[in-house]
Amino acid sequence: MKAVKIPHIDTKKVEEMILALGAIGAHSGTGVWRTVYSNEWVAAQNLVADWSRAEGLDVRFDAVGNLWGRVDGVDGGKIIVSGSHIDSQCPGGRYDGALGVVAALVAIAALKAEFGSPRKPLEFVSFCEEEGSRFPTAGFWGSRAIVGRVTPQDCDTVLEATGDSIGSTMAAIGFNPARIAEAARNDIEAFVELHIEQGPILEDANLPVAIVDAITHIRQTKVTLTGQSNHAGAFPMDIRCDPMAGFAEVVTSVIDHAHTLGRPAVTTIGQCIPGPNSAAIIPRSVTFTIDARHPNPEAAALLYQTHDRMLSEIATRRGLTLETQILIDHPACPSDPDLLSALGRAADSAGVATMHMASGAGHDAQQMAKICPIAMIFVRSKDGRSHTPEEFSTIEDIVAGIKVLAGALYELAY
Amino acid sequence: MKAVKIPHIDTKKVEEMILALGAIGAHSGTGVWRTVYSNEWVAAQNLVADWSRAEGLDVRFDAVGNLWGRVDGVDGGKIIVSGSHIDSQCPGGRYDGALGVVAALVAIAALKAEFGSPRKPLEFVSFCEEEGSRFPTAGFWGSRAIVGRVTPQDCDTVLEATGDSIGSTMAAIGFNPARIAEAARNDIEAFVELHIEQGPILEDANLPVAIVDAITHIRQTKVTLTGQSNHAGAFPMDIRCDPMAGFAEVVTSVIDHAHTLGRPAVTTIGQCIPGPNSAAIIPRSVTFTIDARHPNPEAAALLYQTHDRMLSEIATRRGLTLETQILIDHPACPSDPDLLSALGRAADSAGVATMHMASGAGHDAQQMAKICPIAMIFVRSKDGRSHTPEEFSTIEDIVAGIKVLAGALYELAY
Repeated sequence: MKAVKIPHIDTKKVEEMILALGAIGAHSGTGVWRTVYSNEWVAAQNLVADWSRAEGLDVRFDAVGNLWGRVDGVDGGKIIVSGSHIDSQCPGGRYDGALGVVAALVAIAALKAEFGSPRKPLEFVSFCEEEGSRFPTAGFWGSRAIVGRVTPQDCDTVLEATGDSIGSTMAAIGFNPARIAEAARNDIEAFVELHIEQGPILEDANLPVAIVDAITHIRQTKVTLTGQSNHAGAFPMDIRCDPMAGFAEVVTSVIDHAHTLGRPAVTTIGQCIPGPNSAAIIPRSVTFTIDARHPNPEAAALLYQTHDRMLSEIATRRGLTLETQILIDHPACPSDPDLLSALGRAADSAGVATMHMASGAGHDAQQMAKICPIAMIFVRSKDGRSHTPEEFSTIEDIVAGIKVLAGALYELAY
Repeated sequence: MKAVKIPHIDTKKVEEMILALGAIGAHSGTGVWRTVYSNEWVAAQNLVADWSRAEGLDVRFDAVGNLWGRVDGVDGGKIIVSGSHIDSQCPGGRYDGALGVVAALVAIAALKAEFGSPRKPLEFVSFCEEEGSRFPTAGFWGSRAIVGRVTPQDCDTVLEATGDSIGSTMAAIGFNPARIAEAARNDIEAFVELHIEQGPILEDANLPVAIVDAITHIRQTKVTLTGQSNHAGAFPMDIRCDPMAGFAEVVTSVIDHAHTLGRPAVTTIGQCIPGPNSAAIIPRSVTFTIDARHPNPEAAALLYQTHDRMLSEIATRRGLTLETQILIDHPACPSDPDLLSALGRAADSAGVATMHMASGAGHDAQQMAKICPIAMIFVRSKDGRSHTPEEFSTIEDIVAGIKVLAGALYELAY
């Protein structure tokens, strides 16, 4: 096996690129508000395209709006790809997504500059609407188009809060929804995504970079418990059928269960809407979400079974009506063992200390897994923060992550 | 002591009056939507005024818009008053409030028709804005004006959701806010209010009418528990500071405590607003209300102390910040023992089976208690429902309640 080579990464240039991107859609001081197909998003994609051309890459937008930059391979064949997304939460930080775009461009440009043309083609990609922050049901829109999971009909049915369709929004900036199927690819050999961790595990471990074993199984379930609404004063406790009391028992049960399972199981009740939502009325119903995640498929299945059993038992015992609807269900996505090995060797060569972990968040990589092997690199996040203007990673950790990425791309493409 | 006499009550007439009032602001089939100072409210007050004049009563509106109907007493002196309110929830039912207005008018008119002039003056009153359904901070507006607890400044600062002040709204229909203090009275000897129960206790006991011992202490507290917001997937359970978990423990603790205390203690968590309220985010805060009631002053004090202790202990143990704000605090209002005795004798004379209970809801009577002895009569509510178009009381129960009221007014005024 050939020795892994790590190209020189220009720290100052990386820092300037992050700040330049962060200035487009800047919000709340250190944050960005850059939703897909907005003026800010177009400006950010165009800036990345300009940088890519300056590095001598072939640049193109695909039918859905993903931006690609390419270095041809001497031997041709399938492509080695790295990238992430440039859209943000409302507002989000400068690093979530954008860092992976910058990292892929910087790594590929540095490899090309230092080692010339690769054997296999190398491409970076800047995906659109990973977050679903403008079109709530369009999460992973760009990467789903690449793996053939978006239809022209989706362009009419996916709406933003204003009622505008994603298709009409695309069309307004020059992307033809009728041609969206053309974004699909079947010529990718491997995909590696660099991203901020979004949690505190690296910080706790005092390490700059992680190699991601798997993306967790994510299931979000909408639950409604319905009882009987009555006057808060005139209705005795002993004959109430109070969904709020049932809700509280569910919250305690599922959260305590996740604590008992321990890492990496997580369960979150993030949304709660009593109906009505009024101080002097026993609510008729409480609608809430359970977000439960585990990267191990068997453990995830058992977790969801346990939740179903808890909900059913609590509702039945309390005489509450139970309705459930699965909103999101992304099965666990294991990383490719060969890619994990390549990342490990690259980290060794770059002298970057790493640990392995599962991603508790969803990423474009799990969509890409439908057409090719994938793996991910995480960079330490200050205080584990993300989806906030406060998110921050040091330039030292970022460059360490880019070196690991560049080493792996070298092994795969050169 | 003189024998209590019960006048004849015309069942058909009472039924027609309830239906005629229910037609003004009719909503959702059997409901009404009749907010204070609206066209519907003016029409309802005017209809009651017309009925009163037809019965030979002296009719007047006071400065705030309460409608009064009077039969002079041969001996003069302080007045015996009965009444309730004509405004409704949005929508409410035909009975909450309106029944007590009809009952007072019917009882006084029947007494006058059958027994002539009383010794003491008798008046009925139709209060305005008991519910606070148009102006949320104006609950008991009419009765508060009578007891001198409304100022001309309130007319500027009390707003409806549209931003219009209660003063400008009054002025638009001919009531001068500057004269609101003129609504205050100090010439009332006793006040008796008939109202629907709004709970299921009479129905469970298979009785038509209750004599109300006391109006419960009502305290509504707004609570905010603040922890740390983080990503629902990337943040391990063991280092979360999740206010939703703390909220659930509070709900279970305070509701279980009310169950343990038993009737008449009640505790309700009716409102819950996580911040943010999003499925994939551990909330930073949960804001909620605790509505807790007990008619016994010592028991109420102990109940609130226990809640404060539970909140403090749970927040401290979980590392959550606790903020509390008391929104409403109406101390318990005991009924006058002599009026209770009079109501008991009236029920015996009328042959109406009764029980004693506390009111778990607030009523105009608790305002009137600041200037005179009070008591209340409850009429059975079907399924204990109120604040809904579905509220219903049978005409037989209603007439039984009016007979008890009329008998008590006879004893007090004749």
